[in-house]
Amino acid sequence: MSLEIKNFDPRPIGVFDSGVGGLSVLNQLINHFPEENFVYLGDTARLPYGSKSPLTIQKYVTQNINYLVRHQQIKAVVVACNSASTVLSQIQLASDLPVFGVIKPGARAAFQISKTKKIGLWATRATVKQESYPKALKDLDSTITCISVPCPLLVPLVEEGLWQGDIVDAVLNHYFNQTDFNNLDTLILGCTHYPFIKSSIEKVIHKKNLKVNIIDSALALAEDLSQAFKNNLVQKNSSALKKGSLSLLLTDEASHFMELALKTFPSWENSKFQLIDLNQIV
Amino acid sequence: MSLEIKNFDPRPIGVFDSGVGGLSVLNQLINHFPEENFVYLGDTARLPYGSKSPLTIQKYVTQNINYLVRHQQIKAVVVACNSASTVLSQIQLASDLPVFGVIKPGARAAFQISKTKKIGLWATRATVKQESYPKALKDLDSTITCISVPCPLLVPLVEEGLWQGDIVDAVLNHYFNQTDFNNLDTLILGCTHYPFIKSSIEKVIHKKNLKVNIIDSALALAEDLSQAFKNNLVQKNSSALKKGSLSLLLTDEASHFMELALKTFPSWENSKFQLIDLNQIV
Repeated sequence: MSLEIKNFDPRPIGVFDSGVGGLSVLNQLINHFPEENFVYLGDTARLPYGSKSPLTIQKYVTQNINYLVRHQQIKAVVVACNSASTVLSQIQLASDLPVFGVIKPGARAAFQISKTKKIGLWATRATVKQESYPKALKDLDSTITCISVPCPLLVPLVEEGLWQGDIVDAVLNHYFNQTDFNNLDTLILGCTHYPFIKSSIEKVIHKKNLKVNIIDSALALAEDLSQAFKNNLVQKNSSALKKGSLSLLLTDEASHFMELALKTFPSWENSKFQLIDLNQIV
Repeated sequence: MSLEIKNFDPRPIGVFDSGVGGLSVLNQLINHFPEENFVYLGDTARLPYGSKSPLTIQKYVTQNINYLVRHQQIKAVVVACNSASTVLSQIQLASDLPVFGVIKPGARAAFQISKTKKIGLWATRATVKQESYPKALKDLDSTITCISVPCPLLVPLVEEGLWQGDIVDAVLNHYFNQTDFNNLDTLILGCTHYPFIKSSIEKVIHKKNLKVNIIDSALALAEDLSQAFKNNLVQKNSSALKKGSLSLLLTDEASHFMELALKTFPSWENSKFQLIDLNQIV
C-alpha cells in the first residue's frame, strides 16, 4: 500500500533532449526520485542540436518547453541537453514554470572538486561556442581556467551504441591529444551523451596515468531539483512507496532510439510510448 | 563575350541535401554543366536525414522542393541525398517539375559495370531500410544480389572534415568487416557524403587486395540530366561561354558548413549565400 506524502505534487516533471543523450539524465533523476512521474520528450525529428546555431536551438527549445507545458501539465522542466541549456537565458517562455539546465550544476560540481583550478570541458561544437561553462565557472571563481574542446564525434558513437572498442579508442585518443591535460584535474562531460562512454574515457585516463575527476552534470542536477522541490518531491530511497510513471514522447518514429533506450534501461519496456506530431510543437 | 545558345533556359536547377553531402553532387553537376545556373538548398536546421523515419523525410523533402519551386523559379530539382531520394515515389508535388534522384542512376551505373552481379551498398540506416537500391537493381536484372550495409558513422566523419587518418581507417575497417566481399565486384556509395572519403575507401580496398569498382551516383546522375535536357542544357566543356551562377541557401546559420564547402570548393568564395527562414519552407 502506498503511503501518502504531504504536499506531494503528482504532476510530472518534463525532461527533454534531441535524442538518447538525455536518457542518461532521466536515469539519474528516476534513481533519485523514484516516486516522481516523468514525461520524456525526444526531439528525434530534428536531432542533433549540437551542430545547430544558437538561434535555431533557441527556437526548438522554446517549442519543446511550450509543448510540455500546454499538453503535459508538467510542474517543472529539465533541459537534459547541454547545447539546449546554453540558450536558456535567451529564451522567453509563456509560463513561469521552473526550468532546470545542466550547465550550472555541472560547473558547480567541477568547481567543488577541482584543486588545481584548471578544468577541462568536452562538449559539442554549439556548447563550446556559447562559452556558458567558462562563464559559469568564472562566476564561481574568477581564477579558474577552462580548457574547452569540441568533441562532436562522440555523439554519433553513442547514438550508434558504440560505447567501447577500437573506434571509440581512436576517437578518444584524437580528443585526448587535443586537450592540454597539464595540471588539469577535472574534466566536465559537457554533453549528456558522453556519460554513456564514461568507462571508456576512464580507461584511457588510467592508461595515460592521468589523475582527472570526471564530472557528469546529471548528478549535480538531481541535487538542484531536490533543493528546489524539497517540500513536495518524494525523498530518495523511498522504496516502500509507489513507483512513479514514465511517458516517452518522440517527434519522429525512431526504432533505433527505442532499441538503445531499452538496451540501457530494460525496465522501460512497459513504459508508455507515443509519437507526437511536430506540427503540434511548432 | 557570351555566345547565345538556342533554346537555352536560364532558370536555375535546384539542388538540395540536408548538409554537405549534396555538395559532392553539385560539384559534379557544375563540372558537367558549367553554364547552368544553380541554387543549392542545405537543410542544415534539420540535418541529418539518414537517421530519420521515411514519413519525416517525406515531409522535409516535400517542403524543400515546394520552397525551391515557389521562391526560386527553378526548371528542375536534383535531390542530392540518397535518404531523401528513397521517398520520391511516395511524395506528391504541387508542380510537374522534373525531379531527379540519385538512386536509379547509381543502380544503373553499378548494373553496367558489375560482372559478378553481386553488388554492395553502403548507405545510411534510412536508405538501407527503404530497400530502394535492391529494388532498382532487381528491376534492371533480377539475378543481381545486393549486399546492404548501413554505415551511419561515415556521415559525421565527413561533416567533421575527417576524410583520412586513424579514425577514418578504424571506422572503415568496421564496415569492411561487416560486408561480405566474397565475389562482390562493385560497391555503391549510397550516400552523397561518402565520395568525400572515396580515396580512403580505395586505400583499404587496395590494402585488402580486393577488386571492387566504386560507384558514385553523381556521375551517372549528370548523364541523366544531360539526356533529359539535351535541347536546352548547355553542353559540357563549353569553356568559351559565360559561367553560370550559384546561390547557396541554408535553413540554419552554419559556419561549419561554409568552412567545409570552401575547403572543398575554394572558387565558391564569391557565391551568393543566404539564410532562409525555416517557416518559409514549412
